[in-house]
Amino acid sequence: MAHVAGRPASATLRDVARLAEVHPGTVSRALNPETRRLVNEDTARRVMDAAEQLGYRPNPIARGLKTNRSYTIGVLVPDLMNPLFPPIVRGIQDRLEQAGYTPLIANTDNDRERERNDFEAMRARQVDGVIAATARLDNPESADPADDLPVVYVLRRLEDGVSASATADDHKGGALAVEHLLELGHTRIAHLSGPQGISTGRERHAGFLAAMAEAGVPVDPALIRFGNAFTEPEGRRLCEELLAGGADVTAIVAGNDLMALGCYDVFAARDLHCPRDLSVVGFNDMPFSDRFDPPLTTIAVPQYDIGASAADLLLERLQQPSTPPRTVVLAPHLVVRSSSRSLRDA
Amino acid sequence: MAHVAGRPASATLRDVARLAEVHPGTVSRALNPETRRLVNEDTARRVMDAAEQLGYRPNPIARGLKTNRSYTIGVLVPDLMNPLFPPIVRGIQDRLEQAGYTPLIANTDNDRERERNDFEAMRARQVDGVIAATARLDNPESADPADDLPVVYVLRRLEDGVSASATADDHKGGALAVEHLLELGHTRIAHLSGPQGISTGRERHAGFLAAMAEAGVPVDPALIRFGNAFTEPEGRRLCEELLAGGADVTAIVAGNDLMALGCYDVFAARDLHCPRDLSVVGFNDMPFSDRFDPPLTTIAVPQYDIGASAADLLLERLQQPSTPPRTVVLAPHLVVRSSSRSLRDA
Repeated sequence: MAHVAGRPASATLRDVARLAEVHPGTVSRALNPETRRLVNEDTARRVMDAAEQLGYRPNPIARGLKTNRSYTIGVLVPDLMNPLFPPIVRGIQDRLEQAGYTPLIANTDNDRERERNDFEAMRARQVDGVIAATARLDNPESADPADDLPVVYVLRRLEDGVSASATADDHKGGALAVEHLLELGHTRIAHLSGPQGISTGRERHAGFLAAMAEAGVPVDPALIRFGNAFTEPEGRRLCEELLAGGADVTAIVAGNDLMALGCYDVFAARDLHCPRDLSVVGFNDMPFSDRFDPPLTTIAVPQYDIGASAADLLLERLQQPSTPPRTVVLAPHLVVRSSSRSLRDA
Repeated sequence: MAHVAGRPASATLRDVARLAEVHPGTVSRALNPETRRLVNEDTARRVMDAAEQLGYRPNPIARGLKTNRSYTIGVLVPDLMNPLFPPIVRGIQDRLEQAGYTPLIANTDNDRERERNDFEAMRARQVDGVIAATARLDNPESADPADDLPVVYVLRRLEDGVSASATADDHKGGALAVEHLLELGHTRIAHLSGPQGISTGRERHAGFLAAMAEAGVPVDPALIRFGNAFTEPEGRRLCEELLAGGADVTAIVAGNDLMALGCYDVFAARDLHCPRDLSVVGFNDMPFSDRFDPPLTTIAVPQYDIGASAADLLLERLQQPSTPPRTVVLAPHLVVRSSSRSLRDA
């Protein structure tokens, strides 16, 4: 963090925390005269001694922050029941706390009214900024653009060109899933897609289509279904629809890992074996996807790093409100487990 | 919610929400003159019209609440990565929002310093109360007892006799796990216990011992191990220790479902089959435990209801601060899946 080119690496905030035997967030607060009162007096003294001993110089980003802050950041999460979100929250939290900020999380439960309400409650509690994983393309701004509360989107993004965001490359991820199945000899590939009103749903589907076109494999419209949510019930509903129609299909790209689990349910109900009868690829590599039966082949996104990047973007905006918002796009990768297999083994 | 004995059921807040096509939390805010400004004017009008049309009378608990509140409640969660907590948060959230309150969640990551920091950040943001799932028996109060910020513990509890809490009956749950295994013919039963500084760890272990004693089955001290955390790595460490010693054991009661997953890892590494070689019982019935390989036999706790009860206790305390704090203890039940089997089938 405090490495400067051409000079020996200097002590980091974590070094000070280790020496003083406190949490990094405590170091930030103890070294900032404005927040020092939040720290026990003995602890603050120990931190200042440790910083002096190590010759620690606070991060210029943290030093550059304006005063009169609340040192809290609102984090809007659409669905805490989806195990994807906790690792993202962890990344946000670690990075914010290193800078002395505390995240306050609200679970909007994919409910727009609740989302507005949570956003207003956070604004009323005077958070310094908001990180939102709730972006919907059809509902562009939760924030009132007239006010200057900085908002950074995480995992999902708007397409307005003016909002800061940290996401995975969902287009690339959709293509990776298709390329994996094509390599295994599949051509009758279904897409049970997530909602098209959310960037993750839209871009994964675009990536699916692009990879099929690239390989010259025709897309059968009967094998394309769109869900209303990234959930197990929606995966179940779409897979049931697909198979009830007697579709000629050997592989399924699911909108995400939860939708893939919904497919597992339909297979069990229809006495189909995965991967012998049907291959499935999920998306996210959410916690526990390696524990499922069968362990799920999926597109892994760097969940923790996406959260950390979103926090960095927000800290940047707090330091320099006039800087144009940036977008950070992180690469996904394929994780092959046991839910996909070669057609040639059949 | 608004049913009164001897009279026809009257309209509920949810009925009004449905008619006005808004979230129940919005109804609460729109009908409370103090919070009406948080709601869009047209929406507030629509809610008031719907309430009048249905003859809705606000819940007396909500009406009795003191004024000058922030209508936000802090929720301290020790580990959002444990899928047990999101359903509890959902229960808290639904109940609070019905009363017009917004929960703000902090993930303390089982770090005491972070816990203190989050608590202070919430107090500084003027929350009206705190629901904490972070109680440690060896660290009795995060709250300063001198101040009057109401705190309710959830899932875990203190044993001070003065703190409100909503928990599962962990003692009973520990006993249920043992009784299930005894019925299957097991007597060489190990306990890989959670931390003894947390009520859930302590009480489950006491329940384990009580059920063994009740059945007259001796407890072999070599089969009892205590973990430092309710995590997969701790489950792995304890199970590895247990089996590395060549223990004579046919069944394991794990401290919780994550620790049971740690056991699965050790079995895989040692080429042991569950349940053929060893039976395992988890605790919590956390989301996805039915998806594991094998699906996990476990003690189910009513996660959503525990959260909802904690929210009710806090709303009670906000209404009548002088009422002695209550504890609510909800019954667990056994869920038999495929990780346990009869010794007689061997």
